[in-house]
Amino acid sequence: MSQQTHRDRLVELRRELHQYPEPAWREFYTTSRIVDELETIGVDELYVGPEVLAEEERMSVPDDDELGRWYEQARQEGAREDILERLEGGRTGAIAVIERGEGPTVALRVDIDGLLREESIDDDHVPATEGFRSEHAGAMHACGHDAHATIGIGVLEAIKDSDFEGTLKVLFQPGEEMVAGGKPMAKSGHLDDVDYLLAVHIGLDHPTGEVVAGVDGFLAVSHFLAEFTGEPAHAGGKPNAGENAVQAMATAIQNLYAIPRHEDGATRINAGDVGGGSATNIIPEQAYIEGEVRGETTHLKDYMQERADRVLESAAAMHGCSVEQSKEGEAPSAESDEGLVEIVHDVSTDTRGVENPIRRDSLGGSEDATYLMQEVQQNGGLAAYVGVGTDHPGGHHTSTFDVDEDSLPIAVDLLSSSIREIASKRP
Amino acid sequence: MSQQTHRDRLVELRRELHQYPEPAWREFYTTSRIVDELETIGVDELYVGPEVLAEEERMSVPDDDELGRWYEQARQEGAREDILERLEGGRTGAIAVIERGEGPTVALRVDIDGLLREESIDDDHVPATEGFRSEHAGAMHACGHDAHATIGIGVLEAIKDSDFEGTLKVLFQPGEEMVAGGKPMAKSGHLDDVDYLLAVHIGLDHPTGEVVAGVDGFLAVSHFLAEFTGEPAHAGGKPNAGENAVQAMATAIQNLYAIPRHEDGATRINAGDVGGGSATNIIPEQAYIEGEVRGETTHLKDYMQERADRVLESAAAMHGCSVEQSKEGEAPSAESDEGLVEIVHDVSTDTRGVENPIRRDSLGGSEDATYLMQEVQQNGGLAAYVGVGTDHPGGHHTSTFDVDEDSLPIAVDLLSSSIREIASKRP
Amino acid sequence: MSQQTHRDRLVELRRELHQYPEPAWREFYTTSRIVDELETIGVDELYVGPEVLAEEERMSVPDDDELGRWYEQARQEGAREDILERLEGGRTGAIAVIERGEGPTVALRVDIDGLLREESIDDDHVPATEGFRSEHAGAMHACGHDAHATIGIGVLEAIKDSDFEGTLKVLFQPGEEMVAGGKPMAKSGHLDDVDYLLAVHIGLDHPTGEVVAGVDGFLAVSHFLAEFTGEPAHAGGKPNAGENAVQAMATAIQNLYAIPRHEDGATRINAGDVGGGSATNIIPEQAYIEGEVRGETTHLKDYMQERADRVLESAAAMHGCSVEQSKEGEAPSAESDEGLVEIVHDVSTDTRGVENPIRRDSLGGSEDATYLMQEVQQNGGLAAYVGVGTDHPGGHHTSTFDVDEDSLPIAVDLLSSSIREIASKRP
Amino acid sequence: MSQQTHRDRLVELRRELHQYPEPAWREFYTTSRIVDELETIGVDELYVGPEVLAEEERMSVPDDDELGRWYEQARQEGAREDILERLEGGRTGAIAVIERGEGPTVALRVDIDGLLREESIDDDHVPATEGFRSEHAGAMHACGHDAHATIGIGVLEAIKDSDFEGTLKVLFQPGEEMVAGGKPMAKSGHLDDVDYLLAVHIGLDHPTGEVVAGVDGFLAVSHFLAEFTGEPAHAGGKPNAGENAVQAMATAIQNLYAIPRHEDGATRINAGDVGGGSATNIIPEQAYIEGEVRGETTHLKDYMQERADRVLESAAAMHGCSVEQSKEGEAPSAESDEGLVEIVHDVSTDTRGVENPIRRDSLGGSEDATYLMQEVQQNGGLAAYVGVGTDHPGGHHTSTFDVDEDSLPIAVDLLSSSIREIASKRP
Repeated sequence: MSQQTHRDRLVELRRELHQYPEPAWREFYTTSRIVDELETIGVDELYVGPEVLAEEERMSVPDDDELGRWYEQARQEGAREDILERLEGGRTGAIAVIERGEGPTVALRVDIDGLLREESIDDDHVPATEGFRSEHAGAMHACGHDAHATIGIGVLEAIKDSDFEGTLKVLFQPGEEMVAGGKPMAKSGHLDDVDYLLAVHIGLDHPTGEVVAGVDGFLAVSHFLAEFTGEPAHAGGKPNAGENAVQAMATAIQNLYAIPRHEDGATRINAGDVGGGSATNIIPEQAYIEGEVRGETTHLKDYMQERADRVLESAAAMHGCSVEQSKEGEAPSAESDEGLVEIVHDVSTDTRGVENPIRRDSLGGSEDATYLMQEVQQNGGLAAYVGVGTDHPGGHHTSTFDVDEDSLPIAVDLLSSSIREIASKRP
Repeated sequence: MSQQTHRDRLVELRRELHQYPEPAWREFYTTSRIVDELETIGVDELYVGPEVLAEEERMSVPDDDELGRWYEQARQEGAREDILERLEGGRTGAIAVIERGEGPTVALRVDIDGLLREESIDDDHVPATEGFRSEHAGAMHACGHDAHATIGIGVLEAIKDSDFEGTLKVLFQPGEEMVAGGKPMAKSGHLDDVDYLLAVHIGLDHPTGEVVAGVDGFLAVSHFLAEFTGEPAHAGGKPNAGENAVQAMATAIQNLYAIPRHEDGATRINAGDVGGGSATNIIPEQAYIEGEVRGETTHLKDYMQERADRVLESAAAMHGCSVEQSKEGEAPSAESDEGLVEIVHDVSTDTRGVENPIRRDSLGGSEDATYLMQEVQQNGGLAAYVGVGTDHPGGHHTSTFDVDEDSLPIAVDLLSSSIREIASKRP
Repeated sequence: MSQQTHRDRLVELRRELHQYPEPAWREFYTTSRIVDELETIGVDELYVGPEVLAEEERMSVPDDDELGRWYEQARQEGAREDILERLEGGRTGAIAVIERGEGPTVALRVDIDGLLREESIDDDHVPATEGFRSEHAGAMHACGHDAHATIGIGVLEAIKDSDFEGTLKVLFQPGEEMVAGGKPMAKSGHLDDVDYLLAVHIGLDHPTGEVVAGVDGFLAVSHFLAEFTGEPAHAGGKPNAGENAVQAMATAIQNLYAIPRHEDGATRINAGDVGGGSATNIIPEQAYIEGEVRGETTHLKDYMQERADRVLESAAAMHGCSVEQSKEGEAPSAESDEGLVEIVHDVSTDTRGVENPIRRDSLGGSEDATYLMQEVQQNGGLAAYVGVGTDHPGGHHTSTFDVDEDSLPIAVDLLSSSIREIASKRP
Repeated sequence: MSQQTHRDRLVELRRELHQYPEPAWREFYTTSRIVDELETIGVDELYVGPEVLAEEERMSVPDDDELGRWYEQARQEGAREDILERLEGGRTGAIAVIERGEGPTVALRVDIDGLLREESIDDDHVPATEGFRSEHAGAMHACGHDAHATIGIGVLEAIKDSDFEGTLKVLFQPGEEMVAGGKPMAKSGHLDDVDYLLAVHIGLDHPTGEVVAGVDGFLAVSHFLAEFTGEPAHAGGKPNAGENAVQAMATAIQNLYAIPRHEDGATRINAGDVGGGSATNIIPEQAYIEGEVRGETTHLKDYMQERADRVLESAAAMHGCSVEQSKEGEAPSAESDEGLVEIVHDVSTDTRGVENPIRRDSLGGSEDATYLMQEVQQNGGLAAYVGVGTDHPGGHHTSTFDVDEDSLPIAVDLLSSSIREIASKRP
């Protein structure tokens, strides 16, 4: 395939995925489209939906109504009926395997979900002017996962007919944006025999031509939802008869932010989405806090979570309320292994289009690829998180985010060459 | 008209209004229907919409979209085009005047708005089983204002052909539920020459056959909406860069409830509807508190409001936020005048269907009829708030509220007889 | 005894007591001096110290060091050794009984303790210029209990040789200022056979010549001390290792003041004396709140106490602290009985020096005479709290408080005449 | 002087100073005794009290009563009258200068103040058993500043008769424990011509025989005192009439701890000593927070201070109070310069008694030597903070802290050799 044809093919697929962004556990169209491609390519093993997830680890799964709407929408947009059936109940994602002889097992993880954000209609927003803007009102690929899925397909194609010896697994992971899908895939069993894991992300404020062989500095994170329930009462007539869930919530908010700093390093807390009550003249019986805790290490995140739990329980008790907590998403911290970073960095210096190879950089955010990295590392394998620069006009998660499609072939070349290099270096 | 026919007529009108409940400033169908009735009856003067309101005093007016939707709905339900035109922009309500010679000017105030609440579909909820349940999803006459409007029409009919000498004004007031419509009507000028004002409410936990000649104990009330605006920032990467509107909100809530009690009597405070933020990983830039303060007297309500203002301003300043406050509704306290209570009480002992005449009772809630009462009293007139019992299966403002339609003719008889008695007693 | 001699005698005793003010459970000199007087007068029964107290009900008892210091001081000031021995351990107070035949048992309660406040040295403060200012640095009779004790003695003298038939008990109660002594005396058994109880207070913003036959409106009150204990840690090096008692305290304060108002009437809350921590660089391990709750009724006070307990417990738990609560004082609400108020009011209209007899007035504060009133009322007896006006330059509890000594004979006359009248009216 | 004599001499002086510990700005005896020694040694210039301080920079100066008491005590303990006169008003400390030809100006800073802490009387606390325990009840040298002053004297003696060429300044700084004396000495002008500055501390959890050539990781710190003033009122009778300083304080505490973490590094906040109110039945009119903010850099400390100021001001405003803030102490962060660390480290490897020379270590606390280091560095000079290990049974600031006196000659040798080496290396 010529260089141009190769690029065209990747661009075409990415643009198609871009038009149908689907958030966590609703990636029905996306998974169907990916499986379609995988069958076209012809892989040795193909796992779909429930086969790629430890189901009991799924977090932030929407209710049946919500799932039903996206499911139906995917069907109407042409998702394959036989694949849809396998994804019922929001069990999305896929894993493709290529086996080529005796070498090591190398895995590549790409994520596939979109965000709940309305895409820009600006004149200088390419998807809008070029006709591949999101078809889903209020949803958007604003973090490049359309590109990631495309890169996963591209790498499979590149490896398939190469001299690679070993086993390649490409993991198409759902639900990364809510840090909800990493753990179920990490615990699915598919990682058990993986010797090397690469995860990839484009952008991250690096322009096209820059590559970071090892991204570090992931903050461990946990998303929680705390729902307070008290007793309503008429605020004029019987103020004493209520148990005020909004007072519980406010007391909790004040004390969550006041959790002590930790000697061992950076911690974070945010009550990012809160609310309660229904009418000015009713003592509020319901309130909620959706928030997150983070830590420079998993240990620090756990410290924050324990303190937060104590605050939430006590604030509820103080106001005669109960509180239900659920974990909405979670990811540990992680570090890229030097052995793997070394290989990717060396490859990157020789990759067409890479003008500025960087060995390591720090992220300062969170990502649930860390679950997969940790899983592999705990089994004695090596893992690295690779950044592939792309010019992106708007910031990640904003309505004008877009990728420079020139970065697609760069990523595919870098990753497939790295995978072949890893296999060849193995004793 | 026979007793039975009289009752049937009232019931028919009440049931029709019941099917089309409209909240504050959206009483398009209701006003149209009332004006229709008034033209049929034939009154001496008829004022509609802007003619009955001091417009600058309107509170809680919805935005144009919201008004537009209800306006269009009323049109489709058959509201008269010529009347709708006069109500544009949410200027609803009407005043009808009958002039009969030299006597005093007596006014009767009835309110006409519904509530945003889904009506019950229970088997023992009469409007559901008898086929006159609300046609408007999420809206309901759950406080009997459909009956009030009907009573207003009934009293006009009863007085029209009676021996009454003087001037009768019946005020069909919008927006009572949000204590938003009383002040604009009180300040419209139509109260300036009123010597006697009666306001009426059915139910109030009194069964059919009970009548309270003078209801007292209204708590002065003020509804406020406080909107905090800060600065967003990434909660993981730049927590210090944000100005956290949710922290401002939580600090305000804690301190609002902690406003000191007052030596002069009962006060109330409630943060009844609050919220803020948008995502767990963003330092919240927006938050709001919709709440209310009350006092046994207007002075006490003002004390609470002043302290609340101070809390809201300081909480915003503490967290680098701004806060915008708007008054969403307001009503003073008020007392029924003994001179008028005496007359109504005497009449009630002779009214058919009244088995338990009560002189005075206390409400413990709020009502913006107090604005009209205060206006009349300040001009040297007398005012009384009359309660007419009705068996109501569900409590006021609940989805199973309903009225015993037998109370409709009782109310009409009581009020029209009282009005005639007032006029005849005047020197 | 002539009128003048009578007055001189009362003035002399009051001035002597004024010089030796002693706070709760430290009334060693005062009790000794009172017993001395009682023995001089000659009463039929005389109970001292432990004999007048249900010891397990004593509240706010100081520690042994504090008691020892006041005990020793009293000894050095000439308190009788034989009486002091009976008061050991801070068991102060006395009850004197006169028995005169078959009539009813009438009791008069006077309180005898002083306050911890430095007395004024102003030129227009009579005790300072006339040479009977407090000899105890930092302590003062700033609420007239020196006058009350004197009045108790005066009434005994007046009744002793009168035509009174029945039994008179005069209760010299310790520890009123801390609402700590009323309950132990009420539960001592001495009230069991009391048919009528009068309690007396001078001043209360009424001038000399005014008398209130029945004082009402006592707020039930409870004083509490909550002590938080956490864990210290270096604030720079190990902020996470501490459990912060000051954070617990601050959370509690905010939420104590925010306890909801009650539909049934007035409530009060105050965190009047708080503190915590020791050094800026240590996470505070200790903190305390000394506060009070009040209610228009005992029920309302209990509501406040229950909510306060919940707040204190939860605030401690939230911050990993324990909290110890102790009740430092308590008194219920009470009402004066009309039967007794009537008698005292009638007598007051005939009492020399009374220019303005008032039937009833409301206090708006708290007093533990209510325990004794309640005890008598629960046994079927009647009780009244009598106010005797006195010109007082400074307010109660201020350093310039003083009494007009002309009010002493007025009080003695009013009360002894009332007691005789009560006995004579009894069937 | 023999090795043994040298040690004895140091031990004798240290033990004498240990018996008379004096806290910030009260080092009257201590300064007098140091000046006495300096005159005995014979230095070229000697500055005392006001001559060594930029007076307007003094923080945490006690009131006149407190100063007067310590001044009088020092006199009675034999402090020289002529020196005491120069220290009036709490202007303590001294600087001694030796000039030896053309070389560079090297300064050594030692601090001289004690702590307000009762010294142990334990059997294994050497000062207690050897008879040199503190003579000042409640005060103690619990951080080794007695040793530091002694080392300063020892270094002067050692340099005086050596081959040193240049100028040596030894700075005897008052008020380090409250981070109150560093800035006034830094801004006194005496640092203007200093080319090299060494500061020294013993212990820091390093045993005798360890030396740290360059201590780093000082957290910038600021101590503040915030005093709230509101309005008192009777908590039962007029709760609304007060302006509650304790509510302001509690609101501030909650929000101080909730100041957002900072992306640039570690921050700290502590409300370490708080209190308010006076009686349970009075709405509190006074309250205070004595606290501290810290930051990994001065910039981070300033961020915390700005946010804290905003919280304190707004909390006061919210409750109708005023707040007065005073800075009680302050110190920036600082780093030891490699050039100087190198020299000291090299010397330490050759110093008798040094078994474990360490190049660098991190403190994690605060110290106002950083003001002097910063001053020298801003003028183009180099600075290093040197740690000299000493076995200390109790931790710093505890009642059983003591030093191993063998570390005294080690420190003197290390520092005097380093100073000579610095001078000789200068081009």
